[in-house]
Amino acid sequence: MNTRSNSAYTELEGRAKRVAALGDGLSILMWDQEVMMPDGANAGRALQMATLAKLIHDLETEPEWAALLDAAEGEPLDEWQQANIRELRHQFAHATSLPSHLVEPMQHARAECAHTWRKARHANDWDAVEPKLEKLLEFAREAAKAKSDGLGLPLYDALLDEYDPGRASKQIDTLFGELARELPPLLEETVARQAAQPAIVHLDGDFSTERQRRLGEEVMRVLLFDFHQGRFDVSAHPFSGGATGDRRITTRYDESDFTKALMGTVHETGHAQYESGLPQDWAYQPVGRSRGMTLHESQSLLFEMQAGRSSEFIEFLAPLARAELAGEGDGWSTENLIRIYQRVERSLIRVDADEVTYPLHVMLRYRIEKALIEGDLEVSDLPAAWNAAMEDLIGIVPPSDTDGVMQDVHWYEGIFGYFPTYTLGAMTAAQIFAALKRDIPNVLEMIGRGDWTPLIGWLRENVHGQGCRFTPDGLIESATGAPLSAQPFLSHLRSRYLPEAA
Amino acid sequence: MNTRSNSAYTELEGRAKRVAALGDGLSILMWDQEVMMPDGANAGRALQMATLAKLIHDLETEPEWAALLDAAEGEPLDEWQQANIRELRHQFAHATSLPSHLVEPMQHARAECAHTWRKARHANDWDAVEPKLEKLLEFAREAAKAKSDGLGLPLYDALLDEYDPGRASKQIDTLFGELARELPPLLEETVARQAAQPAIVHLDGDFSTERQRRLGEEVMRVLLFDFHQGRFDVSAHPFSGGATGDRRITTRYDESDFTKALMGTVHETGHAQYESGLPQDWAYQPVGRSRGMTLHESQSLLFEMQAGRSSEFIEFLAPLARAELAGEGDGWSTENLIRIYQRVERSLIRVDADEVTYPLHVMLRYRIEKALIEGDLEVSDLPAAWNAAMEDLIGIVPPSDTDGVMQDVHWYEGIFGYFPTYTLGAMTAAQIFAALKRDIPNVLEMIGRGDWTPLIGWLRENVHGQGCRFTPDGLIESATGAPLSAQPFLSHLRSRYLPEAA
Repeated sequence: MNTRSNSAYTELEGRAKRVAALGDGLSILMWDQEVMMPDGANAGRALQMATLAKLIHDLETEPEWAALLDAAEGEPLDEWQQANIRELRHQFAHATSLPSHLVEPMQHARAECAHTWRKARHANDWDAVEPKLEKLLEFAREAAKAKSDGLGLPLYDALLDEYDPGRASKQIDTLFGELARELPPLLEETVARQAAQPAIVHLDGDFSTERQRRLGEEVMRVLLFDFHQGRFDVSAHPFSGGATGDRRITTRYDESDFTKALMGTVHETGHAQYESGLPQDWAYQPVGRSRGMTLHESQSLLFEMQAGRSSEFIEFLAPLARAELAGEGDGWSTENLIRIYQRVERSLIRVDADEVTYPLHVMLRYRIEKALIEGDLEVSDLPAAWNAAMEDLIGIVPPSDTDGVMQDVHWYEGIFGYFPTYTLGAMTAAQIFAALKRDIPNVLEMIGRGDWTPLIGWLRENVHGQGCRFTPDGLIESATGAPLSAQPFLSHLRSRYLPEAA
Repeated sequence: MNTRSNSAYTELEGRAKRVAALGDGLSILMWDQEVMMPDGANAGRALQMATLAKLIHDLETEPEWAALLDAAEGEPLDEWQQANIRELRHQFAHATSLPSHLVEPMQHARAECAHTWRKARHANDWDAVEPKLEKLLEFAREAAKAKSDGLGLPLYDALLDEYDPGRASKQIDTLFGELARELPPLLEETVARQAAQPAIVHLDGDFSTERQRRLGEEVMRVLLFDFHQGRFDVSAHPFSGGATGDRRITTRYDESDFTKALMGTVHETGHAQYESGLPQDWAYQPVGRSRGMTLHESQSLLFEMQAGRSSEFIEFLAPLARAELAGEGDGWSTENLIRIYQRVERSLIRVDADEVTYPLHVMLRYRIEKALIEGDLEVSDLPAAWNAAMEDLIGIVPPSDTDGVMQDVHWYEGIFGYFPTYTLGAMTAAQIFAALKRDIPNVLEMIGRGDWTPLIGWLRENVHGQGCRFTPDGLIESATGAPLSAQPFLSHLRSRYLPEAA
């Protein structure tokens, strides 16, 4: 980089680095809050985090950015620097799009609604949370309007754009339309087929936390997680967090069932490996970051759904699990483990859903939150709309709002426009894995021997190492040779769950 | 508080709160670095902390402070608010006293010297670290000159003032002069007396980390540590850290000797209890903070030396330790444990020194660092000066620089003016404990029954809860009824180590 000929650009990089370093600090405070902080310290931590977040926002919205961005564009920049400018513009546009008078009351409404939700969900008390959500939705609609005006995007797309830059709801409508046609019959056939197979044998063994943790660590090492730059802990809600060069994933253990924590660990390791593989030359710059939530979820789902739950990898896993958990008897056969990890059933709860049912849960939420933001649905009609959509898409009606409209925290924290990225991520994972198998035809065989090096090497080169050089769709096309499509995902489901038909 | 009649003051409180909340965040990042962070994440953490520290410094030195402080002084303020203004002025004076062109190169010289010291100390290679320390001393002298000009204090006092506000080297010279006369003969007599007593019996038992941790926790509960707002962990160098309402202490375990970790835990709990007892109404304000390093050390040493190593508390401790560590045999008698915890010997290493020898280690460092800052001693003469002072004060000469001039990190991190607070703290602890015993004559008896409530209640009222309402010397006088003196400390030593003569 020639500092004389691009001094505005250099100044931008310095500012971006400060913002990113502070963001890393904030992220470690969040990790500590979930994993280490004593209960009684929550008020203090909330103040620390709010103060730091406000300061980061102040830095991100300093008026100097606009002139520096304009000046930098007149300087000689290489492709990555140009992409960095594009990302800086995007960051600046989002940070400044929310009117400052909205920021604090909205933050307050979020905290209040989420707090009420925690209790109301537990007590199945929709009436308690309804007025709070109404108020929060008002703010969300106002924010969507402001962002829509500022970014020149449709209402819902302006929210979505923060999580998956450039994604349009029109495209989602098309992709989800295909799934809405294909998935319900696929689900029905799969359920029928599995009903005709041998029943799942319940597993017994020593599933103590300590043994499960050791098994999880062992599998993380197979997945090339670098403990020199990372940690593995316990939290109420598993997540992947940390900072640059400091990847921290968590899990939670059920001592009567090891299978969830184990596959959850594979999932979070996929997130962590994405972060670890980002282009180090662009650390602390927007162009060096992960490519939004759809791509992030694609990496965790590629690890979990494409590779982790493949029959090949479960064959590798079975003896490890037997040895570490003192497993004995029929249940510990590879075949039974595959049946457990590939089980499909109509379910009420999104986070427990299998990969066939999961998109139906997401489509339901997408339809509803889009209608809420666009003013076509009111909060008072939400439980009825939820239950009707559940019956329509999945064929069951929740027995309670706890297991229905109140099951996810997102809306109650004011998060609208995030849900579709789960299923866009699943589609992306299938498409990327199909491309990977084209380039490395025996990759599943290698995974079956516990060798993840070729898989991760391919992802490093084609996905992780590309940072934000492209847009999300540009990255998918660059990595797979085709625009994002539902077909690889549907093919994957058919070949795994209906192999005779595929 | 009347917000209309003191609007400048209210604005100052808001700014102070932001600075303090960010400082708390920084402190949690430091804790994580010592306790949780994976090794490979150090470069990233250094960047996060440097960026946040710079930002805090920027906020602390904003020019608006000066006018706001002046304006607030014209507003109607109560006693605590006035003290808060005094502390804010002090904070502002220190933050602005260092010329900004010094800050970064000095930070760099510190990091470089400390890094070299770590290796040089290990290799007993004084020559390697000498030039780095020379450079760092140049900066320290320049900083002392700038602070001296800015604060109107003698050179060394300007550095000291940051750790122990208002403390003058003249006063230290007087106090340390007394110790220099009294301690060497007291040390000689004590060593001779203990040589005539039964030999210490070596302790055997199960000193596994897990058992030691349980014993430490049990003792912390006796010392009323609140685990709902605190943690207890392991780190290479034990410390007390955390944030407002989030006290975190650490220890390190030696599986061949439990006695150090156990008493170290009592020491750190004393630090933590000071922070927990600060006036909550003044949280996040300078007047609500602890009263500097002398007072802080006085609280840990009151817990450890005055109360913790008393024969009464060791009598309480002995059966707990026996039970938790499966201790059996003669060594586990209360008498032998008292001999272990009250052992006095001429020692090379400050951090391992007993309370009789410790002040001699500190006086040596005080003399030398004062001469270094005032230009009366050069780095090249440092090892010789060290060894001569050791022979003079303690009567032994270090066999190597590793165990001599290179044993402490302070100077190599550019910290000058801190050492005296250890011994000022020991004197303050003795004086405060004497006052406490006047008010609660049976306090040692109660501690001997494991009841620390009266002791901590007294400290809450007379020390902790006073925050920075007074100056350090003002607080000592308010709590004990007399100005700081060496006599209570010397009386304490005589009555513990030479009871026949006392």
